[in-house]
Amino acid sequence: MSKIAIIMGSKSDLETMQETADVLKEFGVEYQMRGLSAHRTPKEVVEYALSAKDNGIKVIIAGAGGAAALAGVIAAHTTLPVIGVPIETKSLKGMDSLLSTVQMPDDIPVACMAIGKPGAKNAGLLALEILAISDNGIQKKLERYKKDLVKKVKEIRL
Amino acid sequence: MSKIAIIMGSKSDLETMQETADVLKEFGVEYQMRGLSAHRTPKEVVEYALSAKDNGIKVIIAGAGGAAALAGVIAAHTTLPVIGVPIETKSLKGMDSLLSTVQMPDDIPVACMAIGKPGAKNAGLLALEILAISDNGIQKKLERYKKDLVKKVKEIRL
Amino acid sequence: MSKIAIIMGSKSDLETMQETADVLKEFGVEYQMRGLSAHRTPKEVVEYALSAKDNGIKVIIAGAGGAAALAGVIAAHTTLPVIGVPIETKSLKGMDSLLSTVQMPDDIPVACMAIGKPGAKNAGLLALEILAISDNGIQKKLERYKKDLVKKVKEIRL
Amino acid sequence: MSKIAIIMGSKSDLETMQETADVLKEFGVEYQMRGLSAHRTPKEVVEYALSAKDNGIKVIIAGAGGAAALAGVIAAHTTLPVIGVPIETKSLKGMDSLLSTVQMPDDIPVACMAIGKPGAKNAGLLALEILAISDNGIQKKLERYKKDLVKKVKEIRL
Amino acid sequence: MSKIAIIMGSKSDLETMQETADVLKEFGVEYQMRGLSAHRTPKEVVEYALSAKDNGIKVIIAGAGGAAALAGVIAAHTTLPVIGVPIETKSLKGMDSLLSTVQMPDDIPVACMAIGKPGAKNAGLLALEILAISDNGIQKKLERYKKDLVKKVKEIRL
Amino acid sequence: MSKIAIIMGSKSDLETMQETADVLKEFGVEYQMRGLSAHRTPKEVVEYALSAKDNGIKVIIAGAGGAAALAGVIAAHTTLPVIGVPIETKSLKGMDSLLSTVQMPDDIPVACMAIGKPGAKNAGLLALEILAISDNGIQKKLERYKKDLVKKVKEIRL
Amino acid sequence: MSKIAIIMGSKSDLETMQETADVLKEFGVEYQMRGLSAHRTPKEVVEYALSAKDNGIKVIIAGAGGAAALAGVIAAHTTLPVIGVPIETKSLKGMDSLLSTVQMPDDIPVACMAIGKPGAKNAGLLALEILAISDNGIQKKLERYKKDLVKKVKEIRL
Amino acid sequence: MSKIAIIMGSKSDLETMQETADVLKEFGVEYQMRGLSAHRTPKEVVEYALSAKDNGIKVIIAGAGGAAALAGVIAAHTTLPVIGVPIETKSLKGMDSLLSTVQMPDDIPVACMAIGKPGAKNAGLLALEILAISDNGIQKKLERYKKDLVKKVKEIRL
Repeated sequence: MSKIAIIMGSKSDLETMQETADVLKEFGVEYQMRGLSAHRTPKEVVEYALSAKDNGIKVIIAGAGGAAALAGVIAAHTTLPVIGVPIETKSLKGMDSLLSTVQMPDDIPVACMAIGKPGAKNAGLLALEILAISDNGIQKKLERYKKDLVKKVKEIRL
Repeated sequence: MSKIAIIMGSKSDLETMQETADVLKEFGVEYQMRGLSAHRTPKEVVEYALSAKDNGIKVIIAGAGGAAALAGVIAAHTTLPVIGVPIETKSLKGMDSLLSTVQMPDDIPVACMAIGKPGAKNAGLLALEILAISDNGIQKKLERYKKDLVKKVKEIRL
Repeated sequence: MSKIAIIMGSKSDLETMQETADVLKEFGVEYQMRGLSAHRTPKEVVEYALSAKDNGIKVIIAGAGGAAALAGVIAAHTTLPVIGVPIETKSLKGMDSLLSTVQMPDDIPVACMAIGKPGAKNAGLLALEILAISDNGIQKKLERYKKDLVKKVKEIRL
Repeated sequence: MSKIAIIMGSKSDLETMQETADVLKEFGVEYQMRGLSAHRTPKEVVEYALSAKDNGIKVIIAGAGGAAALAGVIAAHTTLPVIGVPIETKSLKGMDSLLSTVQMPDDIPVACMAIGKPGAKNAGLLALEILAISDNGIQKKLERYKKDLVKKVKEIRL
Repeated sequence: MSKIAIIMGSKSDLETMQETADVLKEFGVEYQMRGLSAHRTPKEVVEYALSAKDNGIKVIIAGAGGAAALAGVIAAHTTLPVIGVPIETKSLKGMDSLLSTVQMPDDIPVACMAIGKPGAKNAGLLALEILAISDNGIQKKLERYKKDLVKKVKEIRL
Repeated sequence: MSKIAIIMGSKSDLETMQETADVLKEFGVEYQMRGLSAHRTPKEVVEYALSAKDNGIKVIIAGAGGAAALAGVIAAHTTLPVIGVPIETKSLKGMDSLLSTVQMPDDIPVACMAIGKPGAKNAGLLALEILAISDNGIQKKLERYKKDLVKKVKEIRL
Repeated sequence: MSKIAIIMGSKSDLETMQETADVLKEFGVEYQMRGLSAHRTPKEVVEYALSAKDNGIKVIIAGAGGAAALAGVIAAHTTLPVIGVPIETKSLKGMDSLLSTVQMPDDIPVACMAIGKPGAKNAGLLALEILAISDNGIQKKLERYKKDLVKKVKEIRL
Repeated sequence: MSKIAIIMGSKSDLETMQETADVLKEFGVEYQMRGLSAHRTPKEVVEYALSAKDNGIKVIIAGAGGAAALAGVIAAHTTLPVIGVPIETKSLKGMDSLLSTVQMPDDIPVACMAIGKPGAKNAGLLALEILAISDNGIQKKLERYKKDLVKKVKEIRL
């Protein structure tokens, strides 16, 4: 059963959000991916958010661009941790997505990531860190993953 | 029966949105004002948006600040014209509210106004212009109002 | 007779504003498109704005970039609803167009859309929503259009 | 007869534009000040711009804030040099006024100054520099004025 | 034993971060608050981050302003979820703090909140949502808290 | 003898500043173009600025990018009107050039144009407008040029 | 004999630049402070920069606001290390000063500090770090100063 | 023995930081280049910073992008002068890197350069200027280098 949900509102977001999926796959953690838009399928978003906890979801990751309401609207309907990924946009390069995702009013937290692919990958890692609090297997893998980061940097041949 | 709805999500928005109410009052057009938040009362927002047309509402005006999802979420649930007023915020001075209100994805239009009180007043006037298309009485008043603007500027004693 | 006017000031705006025309065509609503610039043909702009209502125009949509005065200048001369589309610009990516369009002073409303093509398409849809208040045929089509949005999102194969 | 015109669209701009008037007074050069708004008195603006040259005006200075169309609209109707002063605004601190004044399309030049009072004073000085090209008296005074700037800085007691 | 750590680098951050503490107190969840700076006490930050998990900490919340490295540096040394609160700054109003907190490179997630007090309060709530995944008592309280938000909005007397 | 000087500090500015030269050529007005940099050839800049008036120059146009000090430094050494063209830059797209050119302190006016080529062309036109105050021939050509702008817009085939 | 120069162009910069002086005084290192403006006293700036090295100056610190050319112009005339402090401005809060100071073209380095007082204090400390490379006494004091920073943070009573 | 260290945290920074290396090579000054990341190899960064002075390093240059903590973290652990180069980023074009590098809190100076390659080259030159204070050979070369800048500009054929 999937513990992590990856939501996005437009086909063009998929290239970015694939980074989230890839890191979860790398860790062997199941996820479900859904096309849901706060603006185009608002009812489905509400239903999904309201039933997520009962369906075993522990963390919801939402990617959206421009006037990016998706993560905030999901957070409005659930007490699960919600992670928002601001998608890079054509004109404003994701500054619009970033401010619409991060500047949430008090009482409705959204964990905002960096704009674009680095943010999408980190969304997956943060979800894993959250699960790892009560899952020793993921914890171990995260610790190994962190150690391996050193290698990446050392590969820089100067 | 009210033809114009004024919605806002927080007490602190009232000082701004009163400008909308005042200009509608000046024109003698009925409105209803509601406290509804896309993030704190999401179900009520959806219900309100879905039933607005049947309740005789012709135009919905929504004021919100920060990650301002309110106007967009209402627009997601109705085919009535929706006008968004970006409320000035403490840190980013409404730049966050502006981008979250105006950068709507295609298919879900929101008519965005200027940040703060000038935008709130103009939201009322735009709603009146929309009603005036099929209401000659309002049309007349708008034309007189426009003529009187000249006086305001001429009052500048230099 | 055209009820909707689409105005732009430069050839390079046409690619963007074609989105407005396309959505109106899709709805079978007549429009007229004009090349008029607040800076290069200021007299023609004023004449057009002053006579639009008598010519049967109900809504004016104006696209402009940079120091984008077009929508505001038209709004200065008419009580018809005016919708502004900020065109993306080479250096500042439309942030200049956006602020020049949206930050209107009180008393002169302009309904500002998103930067670029999404904004241009939404300008057409907002004009249709405005007409739909007193035109049941357009209202019906808008409701169907909104329902079909769900399909677009569901097409996301994940 | 006044050779320099100072135009502004709102009472609140006067505090800033008084700087322009003061520096012209200091140089003993006549000016006329007018309340004219591109948005609230658009016809008067056009008439003023069209007749300015015949009325002996050599340089027009226009102060405006927000979606600041005034300088650009005047420049659209005259071949006189037009100087624009972006007035500081409440929310965006004049960044909106600046971009709406400076980002003019090609063919319609506006000489943009700094935001607020320093810009207003410099607008007066630039107008004087322009007149000085064919007016030796003003030229002399400008050279003396420039020399005196040294004193201002030397007064800094450290 | 404290499960949540609140870290900040300067006395002036305390007024903001008190919001985090207050909401945790309201939920009856223990926390520890520490003055630790990535720039002024870098060794202590590293030691704290490295030992946090063994000391029973489940979530670390870090508030910092300007070139806000604190949350990122902590995240570099732990696999615990790290939440960053960008503190409002004097000149740039927290835009600097926001970008330094949110634009993390891939592999090192930081959950960024809104600038200032709303972000600080939400940091506390997000930490609670994370704990609630494996703590039914907190889950219940969060659900009640969410329901009570409706009342706050309804209190708006219009 | 050249009445207009076009100055720039780097080879890469030439593509932009050629627009200034082209419009002056179109009007048959002589100009001189110089490579001079406030940062790389500071002495030559000062000498040029100090001697420009005696050499018959009436208006100086300076193009520079990034920390664009050129126009301001020239203006510091002369009472001739100085026009600044902010060159588009690689990272910040000319926002840096714009602010460094336009935000001059009081007492040292620089007439700032739009970023990039539109600004460069307008710099030439503004210089012509300044000369036209005491040169009827240029005045006539400017009036014809303005009339022809109407044709450019009318060429938009819609 | 002073080894460090503190330069500023306007009386209003003194409040900020006093921070630089204070930290140098605290370290017992002599400095000289001068009122010199790239725009108002350009000749004096050039003379000062050209003779600084021969006068025993090792590091020059320049504070300026708005179109802040001072540090760059000094760097253009000397091979001494130049440190720039962007002064906070009224409208744009120092974003203009920052970009005009930091975005220097290649070949003319300026060491840019943070906007305002923190930057002014750090300018003094950086100058000390530079002198400390060949001055063991200052090196010792800097190391003690760094150790004492820990205390400042520990004073936070939580 | 290397007196200058060039540090960077990611392979993609190398293209930019090569500019630093190239200018040092041109001056015949030895440097060492290391791949070290504040976020991915935090322990190695600390060790490197703590031992740099004993290893004969006089100046440390650090290039980083996004939430660029590298220069600041190094500065936290050493009293050597630290120069920060903000690397251009994909979405925000280095504005994030710039603010994270330059907006350092007081007591921890970082000498910030321009975004990208011009900044990287200037970092090398500033390091040379710092060494030149007590190294006459480098001083001579810097003076010759500065004189040669004049030629670069004169090569502009206009």
